[in-house]
Amino acid sequence: MARYTSMELIRYLLFDVHQVETLFKYKKFEHLDSEQAWMILESAKLLADQEMFPYFKVLDETPATYDGKGGVKTHPQLKKIIQTAAAQSWIGGAAKFEHGGMQLPEMIFNTGQSIFQAANNSVQGYLGLSTGSADLITSFGSQAQIDTYVPPIYEGRWQGTMALTEPQAGSSLSDIITSAQETDRGYYLVKGQKIFISGGQHEAVENFVHLTLARIEGAPAGIKGISLFIIPKFTPEPDGTLRYNDVYCAGDFQKMGQRGYSTTHLSFGDNDDCRAFLVGEPHKGLAYMFQMMNGARISVGQCAASVAMAAYQASLQYCLERPQGRMASEKDPSKPPTLIINHADVQRMLLTQKAITEASLSLAMECNKLYDQVHGTSGEERDNYLLLLEILTPIVKTYASEQGSRSAALAIQTLGGYGFTTDFPVQQLYRDLKIMSLYEGTTGIQSLDLLGRKVNIHNGKAVKLLVASMNATMKEATETGRLSPYANRLGIEIQRMGKVLEHLSVYLLKSDMDRYLADATVFMEMAGHIVIAWQWLKMAVVASHKIKNSDFQTNHLAFYEGKIHTMEFFFKYELPHAEACAKTLEDQLTLTNIKDFDMLY
Amino acid sequence: MARYTSMELIRYLLFDVHQVETLFKYKKFEHLDSEQAWMILESAKLLADQEMFPYFKVLDETPATYDGKGGVKTHPQLKKIIQTAAAQSWIGGAAKFEHGGMQLPEMIFNTGQSIFQAANNSVQGYLGLSTGSADLITSFGSQAQIDTYVPPIYEGRWQGTMALTEPQAGSSLSDIITSAQETDRGYYLVKGQKIFISGGQHEAVENFVHLTLARIEGAPAGIKGISLFIIPKFTPEPDGTLRYNDVYCAGDFQKMGQRGYSTTHLSFGDNDDCRAFLVGEPHKGLAYMFQMMNGARISVGQCAASVAMAAYQASLQYCLERPQGRMASEKDPSKPPTLIINHADVQRMLLTQKAITEASLSLAMECNKLYDQVHGTSGEERDNYLLLLEILTPIVKTYASEQGSRSAALAIQTLGGYGFTTDFPVQQLYRDLKIMSLYEGTTGIQSLDLLGRKVNIHNGKAVKLLVASMNATMKEATETGRLSPYANRLGIEIQRMGKVLEHLSVYLLKSDMDRYLADATVFMEMAGHIVIAWQWLKMAVVASHKIKNSDFQTNHLAFYEGKIHTMEFFFKYELPHAEACAKTLEDQLTLTNIKDFDMLY
Repeated sequence: MARYTSMELIRYLLFDVHQVETLFKYKKFEHLDSEQAWMILESAKLLADQEMFPYFKVLDETPATYDGKGGVKTHPQLKKIIQTAAAQSWIGGAAKFEHGGMQLPEMIFNTGQSIFQAANNSVQGYLGLSTGSADLITSFGSQAQIDTYVPPIYEGRWQGTMALTEPQAGSSLSDIITSAQETDRGYYLVKGQKIFISGGQHEAVENFVHLTLARIEGAPAGIKGISLFIIPKFTPEPDGTLRYNDVYCAGDFQKMGQRGYSTTHLSFGDNDDCRAFLVGEPHKGLAYMFQMMNGARISVGQCAASVAMAAYQASLQYCLERPQGRMASEKDPSKPPTLIINHADVQRMLLTQKAITEASLSLAMECNKLYDQVHGTSGEERDNYLLLLEILTPIVKTYASEQGSRSAALAIQTLGGYGFTTDFPVQQLYRDLKIMSLYEGTTGIQSLDLLGRKVNIHNGKAVKLLVASMNATMKEATETGRLSPYANRLGIEIQRMGKVLEHLSVYLLKSDMDRYLADATVFMEMAGHIVIAWQWLKMAVVASHKIKNSDFQTNHLAFYEGKIHTMEFFFKYELPHAEACAKTLEDQLTLTNIKDFDMLY
Repeated sequence: MARYTSMELIRYLLFDVHQVETLFKYKKFEHLDSEQAWMILESAKLLADQEMFPYFKVLDETPATYDGKGGVKTHPQLKKIIQTAAAQSWIGGAAKFEHGGMQLPEMIFNTGQSIFQAANNSVQGYLGLSTGSADLITSFGSQAQIDTYVPPIYEGRWQGTMALTEPQAGSSLSDIITSAQETDRGYYLVKGQKIFISGGQHEAVENFVHLTLARIEGAPAGIKGISLFIIPKFTPEPDGTLRYNDVYCAGDFQKMGQRGYSTTHLSFGDNDDCRAFLVGEPHKGLAYMFQMMNGARISVGQCAASVAMAAYQASLQYCLERPQGRMASEKDPSKPPTLIINHADVQRMLLTQKAITEASLSLAMECNKLYDQVHGTSGEERDNYLLLLEILTPIVKTYASEQGSRSAALAIQTLGGYGFTTDFPVQQLYRDLKIMSLYEGTTGIQSLDLLGRKVNIHNGKAVKLLVASMNATMKEATETGRLSPYANRLGIEIQRMGKVLEHLSVYLLKSDMDRYLADATVFMEMAGHIVIAWQWLKMAVVASHKIKNSDFQTNHLAFYEGKIHTMEFFFKYELPHAEACAKTLEDQLTLTNIKDFDMLY
């Protein structure tokens, strides 16, 4: 079978670099051990091999399509995948025992999802949405809501979705107008339009649970007046039957990629009979939703990394099999052609992909671990984990999606013209990947979140904690000797980032928010490169210990040397662009607020 | 109608920046004047508006597809487009009067093609291939060959193609094995397989003229044994009838983009009766073919720029119409949303696109002008123009295609989720664009050509001429006063490039070609940024003179200010990455020749 991910890498990240076993000391996870964790991931791989990866291409060729009468046609395999994944706890596996879950750490559960994302990113979307929706209900819903909606979602019979975006508002959630009118019958009546609803009313499940943001009549303007509702497509009646709840799928969006994943336009309350059930308190909907949103942002980052990994694996395989051309030093045309992997430029393209994808996966795992640490600790320890997680969330989402697209472009490039044809998967992965920089807040939104919010919470404490984490890795790297120059390099980049923030803080002090945030995306690019350099240094430190202590099977030396090699590659080829971003950010020229749009013609 | 290109920009580039009228002093072009030139381009725009742009989406949705029996089905509009374009001289317009052309400068003819490329890049491909094929025959073919094949191609009845690539050889032309056996009947008998033949045997024309590389039996190995043949699908018999020539279309390639453009697998001589007509002398085929190839490389660069321009125009239009969100400084949610073009990050995305696409088009025009200058002059003057053209060819091809893809990604990004849907053209343009970094030599091949060949021809004379051209622009910029700091900046980057070449020359002196060329693509990226900075400075100098002399209609001030503005933007946001590339290139760490491939897992 063609490779689409690397179990060797996953093992290395999970046990050696991020040490999943440190989580098992928490009460919540004390039922687990490393062996079990690995068996669970091997079962995920088997499921992906058998049910998901073989349908990667066919789901692209037979996209989820609106049927013209309120439903979305999907490939028959989707139903089987959802049911099998549910049966194997890949929807509810991270939930508590009391909610029917296996109480798995996110670090393990989401690593399993990463395998699915690499195998078939369209189908993993359905699973991930259900997981997030059920989590949200268990976090903020009533016991009755949990009892009603969570089990069928975990069983794969019902599909959870998140319904935020409206046609007129787009990313600006403060402008949503879907309205909820209170009744005295225990529910609200909702009316409104939601677009871009992923996983919307397809034919692979019996029912849908739309977690919907709406404005209760009379609520304050802006985000302070948004409430969260459960709106099922069919309400479960006391007698067990399902009653149509006036949630109509009015159409779908056909897309460049992720074509197996339905994207729908939902219309609530066309017949004034759409019943919605308030989750938690009124007007706190956006805060609740952000639990799901933050999880989704990490998941999108991880998905981008996983899809880029699949493209990398496909291109690596091709380069190891395809003879073509000769080395520049070989002028004799009668000599047989060399494998293209021997060409320096092909190696550069492969190593760039490896550098981007492996570190992105590592960063996603770092985030998943932090999530588990937040939920396993309390007090200041917890607060610190949470701050670190908060600052890393927009970074993993953005770096993995933006650089992942670049990585997939290189995967196409290594295959030459073949890479552009539908005979090979890399072009599909390239198309699929492009959505990742748009989902759950575009790159621009993530960058505003990073520079406008995360950098400044608690007087910059999140930045301080991040720098402290990076310093700890640098200290370990310095102690290895071999890696010391790279620790120094990273230190220089961190200092440079500090200077950039100092430079920008002038605008902050002047309360000139528009200017302060104008180049947030450039700051994001710089921060992303630095954080990824840190991940590589971390991976290299572990590899260096393994090599020094001969703590590996003989045939694995190249694997560990490869980690150090790729770290060096990243520092040589990628990291200099962080400095270029700093130059842009410190440039005094102001380009915001083009008043005269004619300039753009 | 939606905008897909900018006639204002084209007028500015053609007349103000690159001064097409300087060509009219050459004998070949003395029948033309500026007014005529503009009328010709306006007619191209009309043709594109009426016959090409309206079919952009439908050709993607009904791709050229193999019919299972030797032909390729295409959309009916294609035939109309080819015939109308031919009738309006858009296949043979640049040919000499004696060959039935209008003797237009490439600068005008290809600017017309650029409008077609922006409107519908799939259909322009068919036209461009025919033009290049007929040019090749008129350059190196016999009078009889010219008389037989050129008129029907210019009339749009026959389609020209270039048949180079073979399955086992890919980019390595020295390994082609298609064989040609001489007969005593005035032709050769050819046998072999060619893949990725664009514009291959579709149903919109009567006949095909495949310009094919093959090896005459007994020829030397490698590129010195390759000959060029005309192989028609049907040979024209003396009585005017067409005789099937054993050229079978064995299948096609379905692609991620440019789906309206057929990509075929051709099989020559399955029945041992495929007659091929030698062009010029034996074994000189590759040198001949490079005339067409070089033209095609400039054309691909121009096409990438034009497609990215279409994406830019679509995203600009969207940003001027879409209200969403508020400025960072505006906290009141009851205020109406602002147009997204007022957001700094959206302006950054638009200006990045503008910076990439306009300068890429300018560079393509610079190349087309050099082509005309080569053909209008003689002696040292001609040689110098040719050297400049030779060094710029791989740069325009690569910068425009690589950065054009990034530009189109930003076009998607400005539309948010809508950009990913088939409701908007930007995703199609993004898909179409990806082929440009593969066509006619991948980015890796272009980079080897630049650093391995072009940089070193005549002891670096091409580099010296390029630097002299850039210095001339810098001098003009310095004289304006206002632009002087940017002239200095460009000077610093040029010096840096010189140092990098000095650094790399050590390997060249040691004849370590593999190491010298290992990072050729990084050098290409640096050189591309510097050359584009030069184009921007050139455009800014002209704009500055226009502003100073009030040489414009009142409402055009913003247009000229916009040029200076975008130049400043490029220098702030893009140019720092040239220095990052230099850092990589001067880094001593060697990463080539990974002997242990396990490192890559």
